[in-house]
Amino acid sequence: MARESDRVDTEAPRARRADARRNVEAILDAAVACLSRDPDASVVDIAAAASVGRVTLYGHFKTRAELIDAALVRTIQHADQILETTDTTGDPTEALTRLVASSWQIVDQFRNILVAAQRELPAERIRGVHDRVVRRIQSLLERGQRGGAFRTDLPKRWMVTTVISLMHAAAEDAAAGRVKVDQVPGLITATLLAAFTAPGAKVPAARPSA
Amino acid sequence: MARESDRVDTEAPRARRADARRNVEAILDAAVACLSRDPDASVVDIAAAASVGRVTLYGHFKTRAELIDAALVRTIQHADQILETTDTTGDPTEALTRLVASSWQIVDQFRNILVAAQRELPAERIRGVHDRVVRRIQSLLERGQRGGAFRTDLPKRWMVTTVISLMHAAAEDAAAGRVKVDQVPGLITATLLAAFTAPGAKVPAARPSA
Repeated sequence: MARESDRVDTEAPRARRADARRNVEAILDAAVACLSRDPDASVVDIAAAASVGRVTLYGHFKTRAELIDAALVRTIQHADQILETTDTTGDPTEALTRLVASSWQIVDQFRNILVAAQRELPAERIRGVHDRVVRRIQSLLERGQRGGAFRTDLPKRWMVTTVISLMHAAAEDAAAGRVKVDQVPGLITATLLAAFTAPGAKVPAARPSA
Repeated sequence: MARESDRVDTEAPRARRADARRNVEAILDAAVACLSRDPDASVVDIAAAASVGRVTLYGHFKTRAELIDAALVRTIQHADQILETTDTTGDPTEALTRLVASSWQIVDQFRNILVAAQRELPAERIRGVHDRVVRRIQSLLERGQRGGAFRTDLPKRWMVTTVISLMHAAAEDAAAGRVKVDQVPGLITATLLAAFTAPGAKVPAARPSA
């Protein structure tokens, strides 16, 4: 009996941790899936989709806001993996065109998670979880500035804000039917390439993403 | 007695209506004041600031969202009156510079109402209440396009989205301390004048607003 009890003492916590990990994974998968379909999806909907009880869900995520935060973090990690494979070398204007096209795929696919996050989380938190994406944009802009492709008379942080806010605004326009989804990367690229041209210089022509 | 009762029948509803109007005005004034200080101001805070009971407030605005909607509408009416006095004639790039400077005054002063609205109302409703502002921007852009000052290869609605979203993004950047409030009109103008320059044309130099 002592032995049996020892086994329970050492194995049970490990089994519980594995259970908990599986539950958290199931809840996050369900949260991303449910919120992508409907930004107003409730905690009850998400628990049902994850096949866990509400008490279990609240054991891991105390509030709906906490759950949406975790779903947003997961989505942006996924985005970052896709951006990791995007070639941002070579001509900076062409690299920006490719980065916009890749980013738009994610923003378009997961725009309802962004909508849910905008309703539930402070704007600064949303910007905060984009930190790796911000760094990618920033390093491309810096390279373009050093080589003379982009203007140097605007603060870099403002140029990053311009990229992110146009991307998010395009998602709203597409959802409202003001622009067609497949037009968006072209519109954003054409706007940014002009916006980042120095006063007195000629705006480059946007070329379709390779 | 018959006469007295007649008087009550005809006067009392009028008096009640005048009372109701005064209450609604007091509630809206209080909502704009409270939300400008704190976008999380509660209905209880707003009722107290308006010196009305909670029941009275809920009699006029069924939910916090309805009250925030009304506060936003009032703020944008105020904005529209200021934009009405902004000279948008003459050189379109200079007119855009003046329109940005006037708009920024409002966005900066009332940015917490925008924050509250972004948390409580659908994005499309927020865009919807900007309809008169949208028309002002649009008619200036059209005039600039006809005269050759602004590019014609982007949809007008997307150019309007660019103006509004950069204005709102700048409010977030200013609140977060990423840009200085007094730099903002210059940054937005410099970005927009470039963004609206046609490919192959030279970006005009931004001039300070008169």
